[in-house]
Amino acid sequence: MSQMKELSIPSRILMGPGPSDVAPAVLQAMAYPLLGHLDPAFLTIMNDNMEQLRVVFGTKNRLTVPMSGTGSAGMETAMANVLEPGDSIIIGVCGVFGQRMVDVAQRCGATVHVVEAPWGEEIRADQIREALDKNGPVKAVAVVHAETSTGVWQPLAEIGRLAHEHGALFVVDAVTSLGGIPVDVDANEIDVCYSGTQKCISAPPGLAPVTFNEKAADMLRNRKTKVQSWYLDLGMIQSYWGSERLYHHTAPISMNYALREALRLILEEGLENCHKRHETMGRALQDGLEAMGLTLTVREEVRLPQLTTVNILAGADDAAVRTQLLEDFGIEIGGGLGVFKGKIWRIGLLGHSCQAKNVVLLLSALENILKKQG
Amino acid sequence: MSQMKELSIPSRILMGPGPSDVAPAVLQAMAYPLLGHLDPAFLTIMNDNMEQLRVVFGTKNRLTVPMSGTGSAGMETAMANVLEPGDSIIIGVCGVFGQRMVDVAQRCGATVHVVEAPWGEEIRADQIREALDKNGPVKAVAVVHAETSTGVWQPLAEIGRLAHEHGALFVVDAVTSLGGIPVDVDANEIDVCYSGTQKCISAPPGLAPVTFNEKAADMLRNRKTKVQSWYLDLGMIQSYWGSERLYHHTAPISMNYALREALRLILEEGLENCHKRHETMGRALQDGLEAMGLTLTVREEVRLPQLTTVNILAGADDAAVRTQLLEDFGIEIGGGLGVFKGKIWRIGLLGHSCQAKNVVLLLSALENILKKQG
Repeated sequence: MSQMKELSIPSRILMGPGPSDVAPAVLQAMAYPLLGHLDPAFLTIMNDNMEQLRVVFGTKNRLTVPMSGTGSAGMETAMANVLEPGDSIIIGVCGVFGQRMVDVAQRCGATVHVVEAPWGEEIRADQIREALDKNGPVKAVAVVHAETSTGVWQPLAEIGRLAHEHGALFVVDAVTSLGGIPVDVDANEIDVCYSGTQKCISAPPGLAPVTFNEKAADMLRNRKTKVQSWYLDLGMIQSYWGSERLYHHTAPISMNYALREALRLILEEGLENCHKRHETMGRALQDGLEAMGLTLTVREEVRLPQLTTVNILAGADDAAVRTQLLEDFGIEIGGGLGVFKGKIWRIGLLGHSCQAKNVVLLLSALENILKKQG
Repeated sequence: MSQMKELSIPSRILMGPGPSDVAPAVLQAMAYPLLGHLDPAFLTIMNDNMEQLRVVFGTKNRLTVPMSGTGSAGMETAMANVLEPGDSIIIGVCGVFGQRMVDVAQRCGATVHVVEAPWGEEIRADQIREALDKNGPVKAVAVVHAETSTGVWQPLAEIGRLAHEHGALFVVDAVTSLGGIPVDVDANEIDVCYSGTQKCISAPPGLAPVTFNEKAADMLRNRKTKVQSWYLDLGMIQSYWGSERLYHHTAPISMNYALREALRLILEEGLENCHKRHETMGRALQDGLEAMGLTLTVREEVRLPQLTTVNILAGADDAAVRTQLLEDFGIEIGGGLGVFKGKIWRIGLLGHSCQAKNVVLLLSALENILKKQG
């Protein structure tokens, strides 16, 4: 092998479904020298992260920590800690990430009752009620708050209420929602919630914030079997993040620096203002796309502001358009996944990517490219 | 919650058992703007990492990738992918990380046959032979190459030969060895090997390089059950790292930048030179500690150069000495774990921390502190 040259990174504007652009102050934090994972200065950063995460999640939950993996590790943390072999769970599926939850839950030895809706639509509360009535007691009901593969904003309150009426835990995937739209863990009575850093939090991918309320933490303490994943065993992990400071695994130090700064920027802006910015910019983008004659994939009532899905015009070349956006303008947008492969584009305005100049640039660039193709 | 101040990191010299200090060029790489995980420029970085990891592992294995978690996620990747419920495995235990392998393997539903040696000693090949003869066919034999809790350098060749004679896979934990002492995956006929980035590779913690040879990859393809961890399912992950580029999870982008640069620096120095540096500096440190009248924990034949364990003098205050090293000199060293808690110190010269000036500084600082205490 010949010696490699120094790393060089082309300039991009990340407007896909994640990762999002990261603010300069957060990138700078990534470059700080390392600390040991038991250094008092690092323990303070851990405390800062737990404290700030509670504000962003909208919770008082003591057990609120960033897991040492990407968003999917957050999903696996939720499933592996909540479920024991033989448990049942109801999972709402209307996109890739609901499907993924089913796969993860089955690997935990659980019986999964799937409640389906067409891609581009939300799971309705009456479907969950029916599944609860039909399948008897289940351990948990799980839905995806912001389905990254379709752009749907899943309403939570009614489903959470139903889950609790039936004695089930309410589990919510907030990977693409946290920081972009209100998650309000306590107000929505979410028992278990997980997210990722690379969407609306706008830190690099590599951590998965999770929060478990007291009811879920009790359930954890009363498990009959060990959590099947040692790496994601929350009982052990909370002994490191809690006052005992028992060594479990070496935390990703630099990623925790970045998370601290990314959360600090959100709270400096104000969480509500941050939500408003996503709302305003997202609606502006959506209006602009419609003004260009494009059709949005999701109806207005359940359409996310931070992740817009738009139908690809008949005759337009999906891959060619995305390649041209990347090569001529440095803009990344996402293609469709699964059922939507080749049928939609996914345009993210996540976290630091959510800026007026990006909206205007994307609309102009896309119009320009589509005209040439048309 | 009141608004937090900007992050500020105290200056440290990391001479514990990891994380190690990170070179400026690698820290700089962490601060580069993000790329998407399917961006052609990022796919090139992924290829660079696989190519460089093969050189450092000493292997031609196609399936050589950095997993998206810290070293313990590498351990879980090895166990969860190799083992199916009902499989048997022989694990050598003479420290914390052998114990951890047992816990992880049992959570995968395997029957574990433990072969024990006293802490501070190595597992002998005849112990493994006996266990193989006694327990009939096992799926794998696993040992820790550099036991981070004791400072023992575990000899590999004979154990690997025995495993293969009995039709078992040879699994090696190279978390603290990779980059510090020769691992030579192919020459040592290691079937499955895993490591971490935060030891002798000197990138921040957050990735776990793993390599599976063709025999292990075949075993993977012929599993009867799904890997219990979706996040660490190597079959799916190799479809993203391989030519299909199938999306699995969002890779930790910045961590992969850092790994690329950390490996590039090692190969620029030359892997053999890098090993020699660890050997020379480690032996100098060990001579210096003995010259101060301290006793090394591990006998010379199996003593690691990159991680030195030294017995705490009778009467010296373990915690006070370490606190003073940190507060007065900014030096972190490690305390003992488990059996060795309060009995030994662990002094790392890992990767970028392995420099003559650090050896001299640590010896002077420690002598200074011990004199005052004595």
